[in-house]
Amino acid sequence: MKILALDSSGLVASVAVLEDDNCIAEYTINYKKTHSQTLLPMLDEVNKMIELDLSSIDAIAVAAGPGSFTGLRIGSATAKGLGQALNKPLIGIPTVDGLAMNLYGTDKVVCPLMDARRNQTYTGLYEFIRKDNEYELSAMKEQCAVALDEIIDSINGLGREVIFLGDGVPVFKAQLEEKITVPYSFAPACCNRQRAAAIGVLAFSYAKMGKMEKPEEHMPDYLRLSQAERERKEEMERGTAN
Amino acid sequence: MKILALDSSGLVASVAVLEDDNCIAEYTINYKKTHSQTLLPMLDEVNKMIELDLSSIDAIAVAAGPGSFTGLRIGSATAKGLGQALNKPLIGIPTVDGLAMNLYGTDKVVCPLMDARRNQTYTGLYEFIRKDNEYELSAMKEQCAVALDEIIDSINGLGREVIFLGDGVPVFKAQLEEKITVPYSFAPACCNRQRAAAIGVLAFSYAKMGKMEKPEEHMPDYLRLSQAERERKEEMERGTAN
Repeated sequence: MKILALDSSGLVASVAVLEDDNCIAEYTINYKKTHSQTLLPMLDEVNKMIELDLSSIDAIAVAAGPGSFTGLRIGSATAKGLGQALNKPLIGIPTVDGLAMNLYGTDKVVCPLMDARRNQTYTGLYEFIRKDNEYELSAMKEQCAVALDEIIDSINGLGREVIFLGDGVPVFKAQLEEKITVPYSFAPACCNRQRAAAIGVLAFSYAKMGKMEKPEEHMPDYLRLSQAERERKEEMERGTAN
Repeated sequence: MKILALDSSGLVASVAVLEDDNCIAEYTINYKKTHSQTLLPMLDEVNKMIELDLSSIDAIAVAAGPGSFTGLRIGSATAKGLGQALNKPLIGIPTVDGLAMNLYGTDKVVCPLMDARRNQTYTGLYEFIRKDNEYELSAMKEQCAVALDEIIDSINGLGREVIFLGDGVPVFKAQLEEKITVPYSFAPACCNRQRAAAIGVLAFSYAKMGKMEKPEEHMPDYLRLSQAERERKEEMERGTAN
């Protein structure tokens, strides 16, 4: 089975093509350009390099949120467009699960932290469970949008060693160092951000379970309201909406 | 500190640019083209995408062997050429150490296996040791060229769970399944082959320890004789060399 995987949920843009146990290509950047400038040119570059016939792809996997609203929309729109043009199914992978896959095979608790602004984070808690000679990613706390203190309380309550990763780490590092009471560490640069290959590997499991969508059905999962929607809701509640 | 990292030691060609805790770009392919067709075009593509001024790089890291002789020569020649042109130091990273970094933070023994032909493998045994809130890669058995049975004996002797990765896995899988007596598993596609970002992360540690070379001093470490050298030596020993 051959999967094209995309992740533009955060600051990173990443494209990968995987076939079974083999990552044929992966191209990832973490640079100040917007994803509309990077994602499709990167895909085009990869396709040329590996002489990919896009019609040979069996499914398109995409980091389906949470994350940057604009980034998620660019990723979803790209995946939906390709899926409709090629008549291929989509596989939406929870963004935070994809991040956790960076630390495949660790015995520590994995805590991805994405900066969701206003001291909130998109996060979750994961462990790898051995099953039939491989490790399955298992969510102890499913991805969610919470205040940093809430996830810190959960981690301290678990009492197990934890490894942090994600673009929330530089933002929250001082608070983590002050408040975390269990042993902890931070993942290094080779495994601390989104990677499309990780989305692709999880997508193989989803495909086996039949968790695929028609392109027109796919929707990103923002996990919370956009700023405009939130402000509108607050106004409604105050009775000041016009 | 900013590092350009290259790995063309095996079937994979990989280029990455890292700055401290941030991988700015990584481009990896595992495709049937030769590295002379891929490595420099990939580097050029990455440089354009992240608008990299090559003179801003502090050092050039390269997977310095073992591996494919031709692949190592292409990687070394590229690193030496860039290093001399830019007047930057080189950092040679043992290929098998770089592979092991794929499984950062695991508590299992990591065993990279590269296919070295004739039922030989470039391999080693590694663990991650906690030190000052991070994990350091530590070689229990340093990278070496050995018969597959020799590394299997070492693993069975250790009696600890092991995770295998590398292009030797598909080649040796049946033999491993038959002979390994400890619990084992195989790394998935997102972390089972060479990645330049892993070479780059190890290069930061080498740089801190001052383990840098002048470009003209750098040499790949083949770990064994080439086929031509081996045959010549055998002929010499038989007294049939002309």
